[in-house]
Amino acid sequence: MTYQALTPDTLADYLRQVPALQTLLGDMDALDIVEVGDGNLNLVYFVSSRSQPARSVVVKQALPYLRLVGEGWPLTRHRADREANALQHFGALCPQHVPEVFHADSAQSLIAMQHLREHIILRKGLIEGFTYPALAEHLSSYMAQTLFHGSDLYLSAAAKKTAVAATTNTELCRITEDLIFTFPFEDHPTNATNPALPRAAIERLHQPAVRLAAAQMKWAFMNRAETLLHGDLHTGSVMVNQLETYVIDPEFAYYGPIGFDVGLLLANFLTAYLSQDWHRVQAGQNPALFQAWLLDQVIGVWEGFAEKFTALWAAHDAATGTSFMGSKRDERSQVLFRMEFLQQVFRDALGFAGCELVRRTLGLAKVAEITAIPDAAARALIEVRTLRLAEALLLQRDELMFITEVIDLAEECRTLTL
Amino acid sequence: MTYQALTPDTLADYLRQVPALQTLLGDMDALDIVEVGDGNLNLVYFVSSRSQPARSVVVKQALPYLRLVGEGWPLTRHRADREANALQHFGALCPQHVPEVFHADSAQSLIAMQHLREHIILRKGLIEGFTYPALAEHLSSYMAQTLFHGSDLYLSAAAKKTAVAATTNTELCRITEDLIFTFPFEDHPTNATNPALPRAAIERLHQPAVRLAAAQMKWAFMNRAETLLHGDLHTGSVMVNQLETYVIDPEFAYYGPIGFDVGLLLANFLTAYLSQDWHRVQAGQNPALFQAWLLDQVIGVWEGFAEKFTALWAAHDAATGTSFMGSKRDERSQVLFRMEFLQQVFRDALGFAGCELVRRTLGLAKVAEITAIPDAAARALIEVRTLRLAEALLLQRDELMFITEVIDLAEECRTLTL
Repeated sequence: MTYQALTPDTLADYLRQVPALQTLLGDMDALDIVEVGDGNLNLVYFVSSRSQPARSVVVKQALPYLRLVGEGWPLTRHRADREANALQHFGALCPQHVPEVFHADSAQSLIAMQHLREHIILRKGLIEGFTYPALAEHLSSYMAQTLFHGSDLYLSAAAKKTAVAATTNTELCRITEDLIFTFPFEDHPTNATNPALPRAAIERLHQPAVRLAAAQMKWAFMNRAETLLHGDLHTGSVMVNQLETYVIDPEFAYYGPIGFDVGLLLANFLTAYLSQDWHRVQAGQNPALFQAWLLDQVIGVWEGFAEKFTALWAAHDAATGTSFMGSKRDERSQVLFRMEFLQQVFRDALGFAGCELVRRTLGLAKVAEITAIPDAAARALIEVRTLRLAEALLLQRDELMFITEVIDLAEECRTLTL
Repeated sequence: MTYQALTPDTLADYLRQVPALQTLLGDMDALDIVEVGDGNLNLVYFVSSRSQPARSVVVKQALPYLRLVGEGWPLTRHRADREANALQHFGALCPQHVPEVFHADSAQSLIAMQHLREHIILRKGLIEGFTYPALAEHLSSYMAQTLFHGSDLYLSAAAKKTAVAATTNTELCRITEDLIFTFPFEDHPTNATNPALPRAAIERLHQPAVRLAAAQMKWAFMNRAETLLHGDLHTGSVMVNQLETYVIDPEFAYYGPIGFDVGLLLANFLTAYLSQDWHRVQAGQNPALFQAWLLDQVIGVWEGFAEKFTALWAAHDAATGTSFMGSKRDERSQVLFRMEFLQQVFRDALGFAGCELVRRTLGLAKVAEITAIPDAAARALIEVRTLRLAEALLLQRDELMFITEVIDLAEECRTLTL
């Protein structure tokens, strides 16, 4: 069957031909199908049995263009294959945090996967002020498992090089290269800025030192093939409930710097933090408690990640009797290398977080916790604070040693006025 | 024809079937063929017309094992294809410094190329104390041209990513990973050390800070796909006479950090420098003048490279009206980025040079300027100085700003005694 963008009707016909889904869904002639995609790239359907709604799957189909922009920004549908491969790869490493793939169809650019019926998008939960007791634990585990096992610290050099060549993702990397690292740092027609945002706040990002930092992070993104990244690990790519955490949508997966996933995730906790001065106040609450929890997630995600990544590494070296450094046991050298390695990932993560904060404020793809603030002046205040934090992370990334220093910077930026 | 390692006789039969070589060699029934390979990986033949010896080619054929070690270290013959591709790629960028390829045969793992009849291997020339007036100019031009044009600073992101995937070179990279970055920094059975070398000199390289530096450079080598490197750019890969300079043997070509080629080359000028306290004295000369010339080459190669690389980059940005940083003209940011970029290449080059100096002293593949010193004690003195310079470069690479500081370190190490 040649590719066609499926409607609820044609999808029903399609699904009837997939035996693997029959056992999951039961009566294939009585399905409820609803399109729910609010992303930028794909059609997303919830498909459930009419008589037993708990029997359900999600069907995701890639469109041949960037939905956010329209047909003027064409994209090939290869990303569906990349996403299916990445879900299966990450799922094997970390099954408790990655939705299961039941069926993948390259010709239709389609994936049928586990329906997370009892979960919501983390970004929405955070805007609502919900806390999740195991969130930092889960996200740090997910990152440690996926980022360690794709690297030269775990894989043989041959396996790693094969994986790098097999996961080239030119098209979606271009989106990141342009929309995170380039356009937001210059006056570019795709930027969309709040009219209430002072011009001076934008121009601070045109300082040579800031543009230098953005260019250096772009160079790192494009040149350092360290591990298979999720590639778009923001709070809109995470689904949660009080017990469980799933990371979805890895179509941007490619071999890049370990700090990229870490930095994007931290940045999105920081926009959640800064924007709560609007959302919690609107809800008639004192934001302090929830903001403190959000900063605890920043600490917990970083510290949990660093600890688990280091532990996986040490355990792997102990089990194999060799290490990236060589086969001779020399514990002092190993410990020193691991510490310096994690410190470099930390610096990288802060630089990537800075770029993410800028693009989420000035760039094409923003975040709901900021855009949902209807009062332009109130929104500008949050944006100014976000941009100043971004600037501090970009300029100070090589001097910062501890995640608590990032917390201090965030708290300091939160007190800025227009 | 299935692959067979060719002898002078079977090579003559083979060549008669290649019309492209007929015009070059003339009478294909009267050829002089002599095997001259002294490398580690290949058969190398000089083929010339018996009646007109100036009509000649070099034929290089890959063997299915590492010649230095023997059949116990198998290597596929793909490297012949890689070398042919790399010669053609680098030759297009820099024809005056790369031998011309006349014929490449993937099935026979064979390349027929320009015979550099009037040139000698640079390493041999340096041991003899010869100077070459245009050497630094040529080598810096070669590196600037080849290293700039393979990078994201010149290529589109799509072309660069395709090139990275197409030039994976697992097998030969493994040799570098093991023999440059790993084995020389631990007591490894492939190391071969001069019995007169004090154990303390070897153990200095087992310090955690040195092993850390070596591991960090190994990580950079394996993860930073910045440009298509030569991959083995030492003075044995350069052929010279008083007027011309050619870079040969790029079978190690792969996408790696820009500073790798630069660092290996600088390191080999430094072993030449330190070893002249033996060679020139043996020749009854004062070594000072030639050593000063060698240090001038270190300065000239680095400064020439940095200047030409920067000029190619600025000219490309001016011609295209865009740049890696973005399409908006902002000269201050561009200049700052270029300066910082070259400073990072410099730091990387020093780290790689440090690793190269260690492996050329303790590792499996040494350099003739040191191994040719028959007196073990005299050789140990040169080795101690070389290792101390390596240590200084590895430990101080992030603090050193200017190539003249490297010269100072080299001169200081030259005064060390056993």
